[in-house]
Amino acid sequence: MSVLTALTNHQVRLASRPVGLPTRANWNFTSESVAEPGPGGVLVKTLYLSLDPAMRGWMNEGKSYIEPVAIGAVMRAGGVGRVMASRNPDFAVGDYVNAGLDVQEYCLIPEEAIKRSGIFKIDPSLGLTPWLNVLGMPGMTGYFGLLEVGRPKAGETVVVSGAAGAVGQTVGQIAKLKGCRVVGIAGGKAKCDWVVKELGFDACIDYKNGDVRAGLKEQCPKGVDIYFDNVGGEILDLVLAKITRGARVIICGAISQYNNTAPVKGPANYLSLLVNRARMEGIVVFDYADRYPLGVAEMAGYLKDGTMKSKEDVVDGLEKFPETLLKLFNGENFGKLVLQVGRE
Amino acid sequence: MSVLTALTNHQVRLASRPVGLPTRANWNFTSESVAEPGPGGVLVKTLYLSLDPAMRGWMNEGKSYIEPVAIGAVMRAGGVGRVMASRNPDFAVGDYVNAGLDVQEYCLIPEEAIKRSGIFKIDPSLGLTPWLNVLGMPGMTGYFGLLEVGRPKAGETVVVSGAAGAVGQTVGQIAKLKGCRVVGIAGGKAKCDWVVKELGFDACIDYKNGDVRAGLKEQCPKGVDIYFDNVGGEILDLVLAKITRGARVIICGAISQYNNTAPVKGPANYLSLLVNRARMEGIVVFDYADRYPLGVAEMAGYLKDGTMKSKEDVVDGLEKFPETLLKLFNGENFGKLVLQVGRE
Repeated sequence: MSVLTALTNHQVRLASRPVGLPTRANWNFTSESVAEPGPGGVLVKTLYLSLDPAMRGWMNEGKSYIEPVAIGAVMRAGGVGRVMASRNPDFAVGDYVNAGLDVQEYCLIPEEAIKRSGIFKIDPSLGLTPWLNVLGMPGMTGYFGLLEVGRPKAGETVVVSGAAGAVGQTVGQIAKLKGCRVVGIAGGKAKCDWVVKELGFDACIDYKNGDVRAGLKEQCPKGVDIYFDNVGGEILDLVLAKITRGARVIICGAISQYNNTAPVKGPANYLSLLVNRARMEGIVVFDYADRYPLGVAEMAGYLKDGTMKSKEDVVDGLEKFPETLLKLFNGENFGKLVLQVGRE
Repeated sequence: MSVLTALTNHQVRLASRPVGLPTRANWNFTSESVAEPGPGGVLVKTLYLSLDPAMRGWMNEGKSYIEPVAIGAVMRAGGVGRVMASRNPDFAVGDYVNAGLDVQEYCLIPEEAIKRSGIFKIDPSLGLTPWLNVLGMPGMTGYFGLLEVGRPKAGETVVVSGAAGAVGQTVGQIAKLKGCRVVGIAGGKAKCDWVVKELGFDACIDYKNGDVRAGLKEQCPKGVDIYFDNVGGEILDLVLAKITRGARVIICGAISQYNNTAPVKGPANYLSLLVNRARMEGIVVFDYADRYPLGVAEMAGYLKDGTMKSKEDVVDGLEKFPETLLKLFNGENFGKLVLQVGRE
């Protein structure tokens, strides 16, 4: 028996499909021995996991852009970790990597997954958690969603909801770099102040303590040219009422609707797309996978020279996964939500 | 006093803004003497008027893609007529023209409107009413909407609602010419049989006598690549549930919602746009005005050689305008709805 296999791997598995908000009863805590990697594979120790709104969708049955997590399976999650054992010439023990690690302390990554680009090395000099934020999936979602679907032009007004979240902070900062007027929508004074003072947004509307309609009217006097929507629901409708001719509405998520037990609220103002010859379009980041290296390199440059910032909200402890995930749905997280699972 | 000014011009004016379906009380019937055209203007005798779902929107107050019709004004309508008097060198007495004639027997078109391309000569050898249908605004809406926003590729599945209507018949026939599988949605067996047998659609789902969900499943086994929506409401939601990766949903109208006194029903399945990286986009035909001549020339060629058909439902009599307009909203019209106002 090797040193590795003496280790225990604690895991969080999906026990049942939630109705509405997930509860403790939807999860099973299990443990098993760590196994050696097979030929061409690696073993990674999980350091940080990315907690994302999309996880709620993966817990549902039915067709989506990705297979649902099976009942009994370890919950899917992307994360940052360190290679503990390697039988692959591209990875050495000690390398820092970004990969689909799932909600567990150790992850075996087989050769097939490595060939599918399911793991890549990261530069730890920029920190580890930014690789789950601005340099990770959320960052790439914001980067490609804004630039490829939104196609911002200097002088345009860009509104982004979930402004202090992982995708939102990227979208707003990139839009500022492109010369746009950027108006965030976030919950609470602290988040609003932060995106304006620290990230350089032009304004931020506090949906928890103010009238979003009035805020949009005040902050978007020329209307909204691009809306990057992470929330859906009433806020989507309010922004649709303010879009300009030829506007682009990027549908990235609808966190207000994910735990609905009632049907999703469709945007009653969708005919504003007709009146304004506007476009509403969905984005799924995986479609841009072949260009992640370009996006990451550009964003890493901005982080290095201080042009951009990356803020993570780190919660410590695998056992806190169930209640930490819920922070996303009540807006308690401030910055990209990250679960610390292990230490270097 | 000339012969012209001895004529009486009967008119239909907007008396009040309707709530829900327009009633007789929303209209005023007036008459006045016909006037001579001013310098550079023409006088046109109305032969046929186009009755369109969009008219319902023009009766509402508030911002849209076009100014509302003012209370007391002659109701806006496009039509086909014949020049009775001309002080413009480009138009001779006897010319057949397509113009904004409004709901009245005679229309003075001033020089400014002529300069804004508000009137153009038509070739009567193809008939007159097709110029309000496949060769007119609805035809151009279908033509540019499908080709420019939908961008159909051979082999794709195109679904069009209001299939027997003016826009629908154009969309379906053009999509067939582009090598697509075309599935219509229409109300009643007669319309469904007609679009399949006469227009060559591959299938047509009768929403009044069948299950649209089951029909879509049966007729669109590979899903829906393009949906050209004229109706909104529940049918839009059912189609959104069937769209393919990268699908295009063209929002042209929402006739099911125009007379609502309740709020518009937003598409609850709009997140299908996200899952499928699909696009929902509005079309307003006026944006393509500079290219109408190209579209009309192509369509006229198809009508001449029998590749395409144009079916109009003609109702005779200006005084029947109020109740005839309602046929659009209960689906009683079979083909493009046209009001005959005068005779040659």
